[in-house]
Amino acid sequence: MNEDKTIWWDDGLFMIDQTKLPVNFEIINIKSIRDLVGAIKSLKIRGAPALGAAGAYGIALAASLSKNNNVYELQQELEIVGDTIKVARPTAVNLSWGVDRILKVAMNAETAEEIKEATMRAAFDIAEEDIRINKALSRYGAKLLENGDNILTHCNAGRLACVGWGTALGVVRSAIESGKKIHVYACETRPLNQGSRLTAWELIQDDIPVTLICESSSGSLMRKGLINKVIVGADRITKNAVFNKIGTYNHAILAKAHMIPFYVAAPLSSFDLQHEEAAIEVEERDASELCIIGDVRLAPEGIDVYNPAFDATPIELVTALITERGIFRPPLTPAI
Amino acid sequence: MNEDKTIWWDDGLFMIDQTKLPVNFEIINIKSIRDLVGAIKSLKIRGAPALGAAGAYGIALAASLSKNNNVYELQQELEIVGDTIKVARPTAVNLSWGVDRILKVAMNAETAEEIKEATMRAAFDIAEEDIRINKALSRYGAKLLENGDNILTHCNAGRLACVGWGTALGVVRSAIESGKKIHVYACETRPLNQGSRLTAWELIQDDIPVTLICESSSGSLMRKGLINKVIVGADRITKNAVFNKIGTYNHAILAKAHMIPFYVAAPLSSFDLQHEEAAIEVEERDASELCIIGDVRLAPEGIDVYNPAFDATPIELVTALITERGIFRPPLTPAI
Repeated sequence: MNEDKTIWWDDGLFMIDQTKLPVNFEIINIKSIRDLVGAIKSLKIRGAPALGAAGAYGIALAASLSKNNNVYELQQELEIVGDTIKVARPTAVNLSWGVDRILKVAMNAETAEEIKEATMRAAFDIAEEDIRINKALSRYGAKLLENGDNILTHCNAGRLACVGWGTALGVVRSAIESGKKIHVYACETRPLNQGSRLTAWELIQDDIPVTLICESSSGSLMRKGLINKVIVGADRITKNAVFNKIGTYNHAILAKAHMIPFYVAAPLSSFDLQHEEAAIEVEERDASELCIIGDVRLAPEGIDVYNPAFDATPIELVTALITERGIFRPPLTPAI
Repeated sequence: MNEDKTIWWDDGLFMIDQTKLPVNFEIINIKSIRDLVGAIKSLKIRGAPALGAAGAYGIALAASLSKNNNVYELQQELEIVGDTIKVARPTAVNLSWGVDRILKVAMNAETAEEIKEATMRAAFDIAEEDIRINKALSRYGAKLLENGDNILTHCNAGRLACVGWGTALGVVRSAIESGKKIHVYACETRPLNQGSRLTAWELIQDDIPVTLICESSSGSLMRKGLINKVIVGADRITKNAVFNKIGTYNHAILAKAHMIPFYVAAPLSSFDLQHEEAAIEVEERDASELCIIGDVRLAPEGIDVYNPAFDATPIELVTALITERGIFRPPLTPAI
């Protein structure tokens, strides 16, 4: 299995530019908060757990770049930077979670120098912890998979969505590591094709059997008995709903109609149990994502487009939530 | 409303090249059966009713091109041509229906000259009849729509799928003509984007309010109450299932889960009540349709792809079938 990381610090902040996959594997150096926010907005880095690390490293980067030696002023500066990073993608809770965790470290420091050192150490810890957490949840999740399973997944909840290993695809990796034969159906995931660009790519890298489909095929494959489980990741899990890539809700309804388990694999950092579904802002993205690919125009100019990045799946449609602390079955509130 | 035709004869066979839309409106002249089969396979012309006319004109074209003056030999030649045309797209029943209807005319003729004249006249009649039939079924269907409806449609069952007017979109046109306010959500319809390229284009041409979405958004829009009816066309309606563009089945299950009517609008020429679902071959198309758009590679080279053109929706999921003879509700067999 490939142990490469999606984001890391090595005398500077580096990440894989995921918009270049599957054709080119390019590493970019993030030199400023502006670079980072641009990378997050343009999805050079995406996936809830990876955004947690990006938020954390963002604060550490801002601290390392700052010329401010006054503790209080530097703390204030970092809080403003934190707000800038958080709004880059409002729906994924991990981004805020990563920012806030490192801001707290900064707030507890007593000198500017200590802020710089402690935030960098803490960001590094979050990144390392991400891989440990994913492996832990994957070990739990792998018990839910059986030899010969055909798994539907949507978008990319793999190692490219995390610092490493993956959540939904981490579960698949761990099941395969334990000797089970697993085949994945990857939905291409319109409009940005994270399924065809990223999930297909990383599974091929790891020699995991994968078939690419349009999300349109999911129902008929379930009806034919060719898909027997669904596993997806999550961008935010509230008290009553799972926010994840647009299309997740369709698969959840289809899974229920075909009596197929629908699993959500996510670290506890994706949970936001103070909120209900209605309180969460769903990011709407640009119309051009549906209208143009490269220099091919797919839709008439001026067409009205509705392009939400996420949907909400009611928690009662989730068979089980796979976390680093074990498997939880809805209803959630008392369980976690 | 725009009354342009999709396919017509004018001292030669002409059609709109639908692969060039929405950017360019190009008319092509079909000079041989090879041209015609190429145009059908590459979806320059598509849509069940339009394929009926294409099949019909194909036999008439072959008769007009033939130098054979022996009735029997010409009839044999046309039968071979008919087989060639039919296999170009196996799932849409109308293609065979159009071919067979004109072959029958040829078989009943007594001279080669009569074959040439009668097949051309009969093909023209089929094309004219298509528009009349679509308008008839649309008038029935329009009664099912209410002022203020938000209609989900998939693929293109509009005038571009027919000789003119349309089936699913014909129903919308007739409802609007009768004074109702209707808004359409057009699914982009991967992998070939007939929704964004064709449905969006033809609705904009007619000033019909349309919003383009990924098929992934259909469920969450239903859940929010923003879609209250689904209307699609059909490529073949058997005793127990509706074959239509891949993704139709997903929308049918989603409509049922949200207690939304799911309508299928199709001429009787799309019905094949001798067969059950299991007998029908579903065309699988090339992997490249999911992997490459223009010069953009969306998926890794060598990826395994499952790319069926159609799916089957069990007839019991259909609220009503809209035909030129009226509205039918499943079960079908005794009704039609």
